[in-house]
Amino acid sequence: MTTYNAPVEDMMFLYDYLKDNKNYNEIEKYKEINSDLVKDILEQAAKINKEIILPLAKTGDENPCIYENGIVRSPPGYKEAYKKFIEDGWTSLSCDSKYGGQDMPKTISTFFEEMLSSSSLSFKLYSELSIGAYNCILHHADQKIKDKFLPKIVEGKWSGTMCLTESHCGTDLGLLKTKAVKQSDNSYNISGQKIFITSGDHDLTENIIHLVLAKIPGSPPGSKGISLFLVPKFLVDDDGTVGSRNGVNTASIETKMGIKGSPTCVLNFENAKGYMIGPENKGLNSMFTMMNLERIIVGIQGLGISETAYQNALSYAKERKQGKANNSKNKEADLIIQHADIRRSLMNMKSLIEGQRSFAFWVSQLIDVSLNHSDKKVKESAGDLVSLMTPIIKSFFSDTGMEITNDAIQVFGGYGYTKDQGIEQLFRDNRITPIYEGTNSVQAIDLVYRKVLNNKIFDKYIDQITGEIKEFSEDKNLSLFVQKFQKYLELLNNFTLWLTEKNKLSKDDVSAACNDYLKVFGYIALAHSWLKILKVSHDKIDQNKEFFQDKINTATYYFDKILPRVQAHYISAISGSETMMKGNFN
Amino acid sequence: MTTYNAPVEDMMFLYDYLKDNKNYNEIEKYKEINSDLVKDILEQAAKINKEIILPLAKTGDENPCIYENGIVRSPPGYKEAYKKFIEDGWTSLSCDSKYGGQDMPKTISTFFEEMLSSSSLSFKLYSELSIGAYNCILHHADQKIKDKFLPKIVEGKWSGTMCLTESHCGTDLGLLKTKAVKQSDNSYNISGQKIFITSGDHDLTENIIHLVLAKIPGSPPGSKGISLFLVPKFLVDDDGTVGSRNGVNTASIETKMGIKGSPTCVLNFENAKGYMIGPENKGLNSMFTMMNLERIIVGIQGLGISETAYQNALSYAKERKQGKANNSKNKEADLIIQHADIRRSLMNMKSLIEGQRSFAFWVSQLIDVSLNHSDKKVKESAGDLVSLMTPIIKSFFSDTGMEITNDAIQVFGGYGYTKDQGIEQLFRDNRITPIYEGTNSVQAIDLVYRKVLNNKIFDKYIDQITGEIKEFSEDKNLSLFVQKFQKYLELLNNFTLWLTEKNKLSKDDVSAACNDYLKVFGYIALAHSWLKILKVSHDKIDQNKEFFQDKINTATYYFDKILPRVQAHYISAISGSETMMKGNFN
Repeated sequence: MTTYNAPVEDMMFLYDYLKDNKNYNEIEKYKEINSDLVKDILEQAAKINKEIILPLAKTGDENPCIYENGIVRSPPGYKEAYKKFIEDGWTSLSCDSKYGGQDMPKTISTFFEEMLSSSSLSFKLYSELSIGAYNCILHHADQKIKDKFLPKIVEGKWSGTMCLTESHCGTDLGLLKTKAVKQSDNSYNISGQKIFITSGDHDLTENIIHLVLAKIPGSPPGSKGISLFLVPKFLVDDDGTVGSRNGVNTASIETKMGIKGSPTCVLNFENAKGYMIGPENKGLNSMFTMMNLERIIVGIQGLGISETAYQNALSYAKERKQGKANNSKNKEADLIIQHADIRRSLMNMKSLIEGQRSFAFWVSQLIDVSLNHSDKKVKESAGDLVSLMTPIIKSFFSDTGMEITNDAIQVFGGYGYTKDQGIEQLFRDNRITPIYEGTNSVQAIDLVYRKVLNNKIFDKYIDQITGEIKEFSEDKNLSLFVQKFQKYLELLNNFTLWLTEKNKLSKDDVSAACNDYLKVFGYIALAHSWLKILKVSHDKIDQNKEFFQDKINTATYYFDKILPRVQAHYISAISGSETMMKGNFN
Repeated sequence: MTTYNAPVEDMMFLYDYLKDNKNYNEIEKYKEINSDLVKDILEQAAKINKEIILPLAKTGDENPCIYENGIVRSPPGYKEAYKKFIEDGWTSLSCDSKYGGQDMPKTISTFFEEMLSSSSLSFKLYSELSIGAYNCILHHADQKIKDKFLPKIVEGKWSGTMCLTESHCGTDLGLLKTKAVKQSDNSYNISGQKIFITSGDHDLTENIIHLVLAKIPGSPPGSKGISLFLVPKFLVDDDGTVGSRNGVNTASIETKMGIKGSPTCVLNFENAKGYMIGPENKGLNSMFTMMNLERIIVGIQGLGISETAYQNALSYAKERKQGKANNSKNKEADLIIQHADIRRSLMNMKSLIEGQRSFAFWVSQLIDVSLNHSDKKVKESAGDLVSLMTPIIKSFFSDTGMEITNDAIQVFGGYGYTKDQGIEQLFRDNRITPIYEGTNSVQAIDLVYRKVLNNKIFDKYIDQITGEIKEFSEDKNLSLFVQKFQKYLELLNNFTLWLTEKNKLSKDDVSAACNDYLKVFGYIALAHSWLKILKVSHDKIDQNKEFFQDKINTATYYFDKILPRVQAHYISAISGSETMMKGNFN
């Protein structure tokens, strides 16, 4: 089995030294949250993750969810753990106190999301979509619906789902067929089949609140005729008591490569009673409130799983003896952590993970500003940057999660391929993250066509970081890094210009370049985060010499060893799409 | 379940147009093998792979091997398939006719190895190590042993294993503890435990011939005191009849991420009777005869699995409709193969696979020369090149196998993550290939320290391909490709010089760069193969226009899109090892 100790020190480093978004620090309700409180929350979170949630990973993998006679049963121990989980209030962390939440910022809840992903992604998924449903209802439903459903969701007694996909449409929701027919009481009768519904049915909560995309007959074709409905598994009376079963049934659950402790359901809706959320035919917009935050969390899943993979590879490397290290005077075999190649592999993981955690913290502050700042313009501006960063976090973190879990297996050698170590499970569990909530290719297309080419968000981002970097370049400790960074930033600018030009002439060139563009952007955004860490580390080095020197060293590794990957993606992408469009693929 | 049609056309293209090694064409016994015979063999091979072996992949994954009461049982249907497999003579394809073999060259048997890997790696592994054992016995055992054991192995009635690894030593065989004590009849009593033994026990063959590394008490310490022994599961009488059980027992089998239809055994040797193969204390040398060919086959496994992944991703892309392609006038959704990004992904796979197949064919000719040429010097010279290419095929093909199976899952979207499609199984099955027969890091170290830095093989390789390229550069169709290639070849030369210099000053810099060096070498070696394909395709274009134009197009893709990766590996590697050696890894 894997071990896991939450990286509270690194998280507190970010909270104490890199909470540098001016607008974030202006948010009234977060001013009273101090470092001690955060540390206390993170330590409690670390404890429940290590003691109660981590063991569920292996249990769920060995005893997948069971579907029998229309009922889904979670793996052994999940019920008891979930009970404790909601008793301790973990589902309510970032929710509004009006509905029973604890009003904590995303800066803190994102750390918690990471820890849960590190411990057991399968267990996490039971409550994760509830937060999505919560956000969607909070922002789009009318007050009566909010009052009826939100408190129970916040408490964790009820959970939530997102019902988008149908067998013939995943990416392309315009094709969906699920129907919603208006009834005399203003509710709707929902009929159709939804697939790949995470936590679509299970035995952990008293009720399940489905958020379902469907079409009202006569609505416009394609994605402009989609509305959003709240469909509870059990109907809820006006006084809030859970009533009779609604017309939602589980047809089957998927047998999957990983996250076996999480049920992925086929749900049949047969004249199920539903309530419209948000305006008619604007369902996709409302759903995207949920989707966008969810996509960021999927990126965090990749980060969390990577952290566990790293920790376990590291501790194995400190135990296993094999071969002689260079310059070793040892007569016996050396620990493999003494071998340069193993250290390279571990530094690869470490520099990506710590960079991504810092980048995610930077984005978390932006999310909090976008949700809670008092100035509408500031809110919108932060929201724009969040929307730019969403596909990057989702895809880049989930893809590097594959790289890191893959490398971690390799550190274990033959043992990594067996079930005993738990390391191969991380590789399998993480493999869903580049797929769900929109495949990484869809994210790349979203980044390029919707965020970069269609508006000015990109320029805003470049302006902001260029401003920050200008200040850094005056620091002689940073000047070499800043020079390198500026070279790569210029490449990003050139790449963006190339996309802009090609978008007028050859859309296929653009489409074929999206994935490379996203990767280039991701590596450069991480370099930006590392620059900020470098600045702080040099400024504060006397406060914790060993810690900050290690940060400087890891940043140097990142700039030397990881950042050059950008070049290959760029050169490959700008060679265009002619060969692939010409291929006959017989 | 996956589908698979052996790429006989592409194989025959190589056999007909790229059998260009002068020395290969001088080998007397292969002169009578003509194109029609080869095509006939490949078509028969394609048939048994598609009809009988392919279905075993899913069966083995769903019904892994069972270990009960000391006995290992193979998955349902494996016995029957194996019976047919040996009846049709497939185990004897490349073996010596003196022992019942068919004397086919590696150029042909390697195609067959690829097909088997494409169909079911688990099933393949039952006979694969037999070929290894065959080679080892053929080259190192005395005649009596050969006569006693080889015919049955060639016939497939007995199978073979390689017993190297012990729990405390995989890479570092110098640490092994298994003991061999000489007996009065000149046999040895072998005692110790071996782990990760592929096909270590099963019910497909009447006997299992273990080749075991062990130490004779009093022999020199480390790897210089290791001898090799043949230890049959059942003792064999002088007349060849199978006698009583030897002291070898199966303690357990591993529960693994993939290749579940193949038993990976822990074997206990307790005073098992063994016969020394080759000279005392030179066991590692003898074993390496087996290991080297085996390593190449592991690379071919990666290629074979990649081919199946590609074929299935391609056919899914031709069925699945989703979204609108650029410039599409279709009112409904388009097939995903019309999307530039999906085509990019498919071309990535195709250009790697076809390039690797061609590269492997080039190496296969060298292997045949190294084994069968009449001139000893020519033999040795070819053997040198094979030894240089062995770690590259093993690591580069198995690593790109991970890239390709990963990308294939992505083409399937959510369906790729479920068990139904069989595509995720390819990803899991292939994950063993970068690990076994020496991890890919060990291969990279072998390449750099033993093959490149320690002798002149590298120069010989560069001389040979420079000569070939010179001729190509006069062809105006190729000149742009040759220019690009020369640029990258210069980079490989610079990288090699850098390693040579650093080897005197900072071994850690070299060790940390080995993996990047191997990748750089691999990509460039593939580019060399693509150049040869380009030459032939332009020269012969009138013979099959569509086929050769597609080759030219795919080669162009490779040069534009894949080859630029080299740059990133080089820049990253030559930044040295200081940061990783300084990291404190707390």
